[in-house]
Amino acid sequence: MSDRLRPESTIDLAASAGTLLGVLREAPPLTHCITNAVVTGFTANVLLAVGAAPAMVDIVGESGMFAGVASGLLINLGTPTPEQRAASVEAVAGASAAGTPWVLDPVAIGALPVRTALAQELVAQRPTAIRGNASEILALAGLSAGGRGVDATDSTDAAADAALSLAARFGSVVAVSGPVDLITDGQRVLRIANGDELLTRVTGGGCALGAVMAAFLGAARRAGVDAFTAVASASLVYTIAAEQAALRSTGPGSFAVALLDALSAVSAADLAAGARVESGAL
Amino acid sequence: MSDRLRPESTIDLAASAGTLLGVLREAPPLTHCITNAVVTGFTANVLLAVGAAPAMVDIVGESGMFAGVASGLLINLGTPTPEQRAASVEAVAGASAAGTPWVLDPVAIGALPVRTALAQELVAQRPTAIRGNASEILALAGLSAGGRGVDATDSTDAAADAALSLAARFGSVVAVSGPVDLITDGQRVLRIANGDELLTRVTGGGCALGAVMAAFLGAARRAGVDAFTAVASASLVYTIAAEQAALRSTGPGSFAVALLDALSAVSAADLAAGARVESGAL
Amino acid sequence: MSDRLRPESTIDLAASAGTLLGVLREAPPLTHCITNAVVTGFTANVLLAVGAAPAMVDIVGESGMFAGVASGLLINLGTPTPEQRAASVEAVAGASAAGTPWVLDPVAIGALPVRTALAQELVAQRPTAIRGNASEILALAGLSAGGRGVDATDSTDAAADAALSLAARFGSVVAVSGPVDLITDGQRVLRIANGDELLTRVTGGGCALGAVMAAFLGAARRAGVDAFTAVASASLVYTIAAEQAALRSTGPGSFAVALLDALSAVSAADLAAGARVESGAL
Repeated sequence: MSDRLRPESTIDLAASAGTLLGVLREAPPLTHCITNAVVTGFTANVLLAVGAAPAMVDIVGESGMFAGVASGLLINLGTPTPEQRAASVEAVAGASAAGTPWVLDPVAIGALPVRTALAQELVAQRPTAIRGNASEILALAGLSAGGRGVDATDSTDAAADAALSLAARFGSVVAVSGPVDLITDGQRVLRIANGDELLTRVTGGGCALGAVMAAFLGAARRAGVDAFTAVASASLVYTIAAEQAALRSTGPGSFAVALLDALSAVSAADLAAGARVESGAL
Repeated sequence: MSDRLRPESTIDLAASAGTLLGVLREAPPLTHCITNAVVTGFTANVLLAVGAAPAMVDIVGESGMFAGVASGLLINLGTPTPEQRAASVEAVAGASAAGTPWVLDPVAIGALPVRTALAQELVAQRPTAIRGNASEILALAGLSAGGRGVDATDSTDAAADAALSLAARFGSVVAVSGPVDLITDGQRVLRIANGDELLTRVTGGGCALGAVMAAFLGAARRAGVDAFTAVASASLVYTIAAEQAALRSTGPGSFAVALLDALSAVSAADLAAGARVESGAL
Repeated sequence: MSDRLRPESTIDLAASAGTLLGVLREAPPLTHCITNAVVTGFTANVLLAVGAAPAMVDIVGESGMFAGVASGLLINLGTPTPEQRAASVEAVAGASAAGTPWVLDPVAIGALPVRTALAQELVAQRPTAIRGNASEILALAGLSAGGRGVDATDSTDAAADAALSLAARFGSVVAVSGPVDLITDGQRVLRIANGDELLTRVTGGGCALGAVMAAFLGAARRAGVDAFTAVASASLVYTIAAEQAALRSTGPGSFAVALLDALSAVSAADLAAGARVESGAL
């Protein structure tokens, strides 16, 4: 990747991400999550570690009003019970009415019919950002039947066209997670080569990133920063913390612990020193 | 706080807490929890670490009978699905009929209507103890609209009058969690200055304390110890373990791990050496 | 136990388990879990650590078709909401139709009526394997009212007759977890003396083993290995990793972390060196 690196864009994102991280920590964005039962605790801990204020309000009769007062919202479809499905629809309506930025994470859509139908319904409400692995982004764009469960069985770049298509149709920033993260708003594209393979050995390694994106979108809105920069900043902060954590780990258990410690300590200087970002054409 | 410290009351609580911890570990109290989806695993691990026997029985048709045979019960309203709401009402009826002590933790009530209504319904059943942050205690007493999510936006002492009022109306021990924990039964009051700020950086840091209170109430009932002493003992054991954990931590991830280790090892001698407790007027 | 040890059977199981572990890691079995809310995250992390691919698909309309494509299925009855109960019935039908091996973990059955009725309904569908503590196995066989919650209040050998009876009636491999694990298919019996008491101090210590059994059954099916060997292999791998973790732990918190690290690193050589297995009569 180094041959295609453009140092100036690397520096730009690292600087923006560092600034936004400071904004977030100074006034923790209330980050509303409707997420799956496997990763609720880890997701809340990731948000607390990075400096945000998580709130998992996922019942009918509360999620809509809460999305209206939250700084950012995550809808993750990992274990969509009937109650969560209804609460998600309610929350998206509340977020849309109030202008709260929101992230859609269409976990394991494609072959599984209930969540796939819900994802199609929700994406039509124009999420601020969409995060998934390549299989999920392909499936959401209608270009693939999806992966098996939450595995990424397609490479990130294989989903570039699908990401562009989703960005154009729904006005969303689309982030495709993988060894290299691809982020686009339909006009601009960034590839972030940071991260560590251990993120795939911890449940919620990807899901929690969606929540961090919601938190950064909340901070960015307050700071007048655009959604593309916010989503890319969240990815950079998260993957650089993951690299730091990997250095202190002896396996996936200690990595998950070290990731939380690293997220609470990662600094603007760390981002500037570690970012491996490429901007350019799709 | 040192100028208002009364050494004799410090020693009293530490001694009582040490004795009760021994009782609990010798015959682990079966601690029935209906708690939120974010913290179920952490809460069970906290209970196991301190020496109790957790059981998360939160479905209709089982929670009532189980509350009747359990040693203590926790009702935590963090993510109250319809099933959990019905199971909570059933469990409180079972606990009341059998004399099982129970704890109400009214997470994030105030602005959120579903849980607020349920909290009002449950508090009328006279919980043995109520645990919350200042915002939640104020909201439960009808004196505030509550915080934003689970944040404490009011200081502990700001909720002193609300705590007194709840204690008087419902015969409950009321514990207000914060940098200094305030505990009252309407007659007596204790302030515990132990703990560590990292408890607020781990999801379930407060919720798990409610479960520990339920466990200590179970042990206390067997030992013929009053509920006020039991609730204060739980707070002291938990916050001193937190201090020990903070010394061995490099961030919120390692803190949560170290807290479990510390809870399993904390001794009566540690309590005597570390307690910073003040008794006195509200 | 050493006086009754048969070295040759120890070596046999260790060798089989080592081979199967290699098969599993080379092609991670998609392991479908419908499990309780307390241990979902830990269970997924255990599966990822050992080398399997977890997927928690627990809603109606998806669980049946998913069980049909999964390599193995776990049904754990720890917190059986109405949605999970219906999804479990659907999943077992899907698994049966497709020949997917599946594990039933009848958590805390006996006194609790809803899960006990469901366990009886599911066991009649002839699970490939049944895992529980002695109290649960006795209750499932109709020989006891069960334990209090998830505690094992009976010793492993006390459930030997119940295990034999279940194996004969339903054609299942039955694994009774305890200080010594007992595994039988009605003809053969193995006792595995590996493990550590800390497994009982971490929530999900037993539940996650059920998931590992489902993963090993998936790998075994592909490799043409029988279910009895698969279940015993899963127990051996898990309990030897637990011994390694205990050596690096200072309490239940650090043990849970170290267990995940150990599961990701445990090797065939470790199994051969550490196995304490006895085969013989019940």
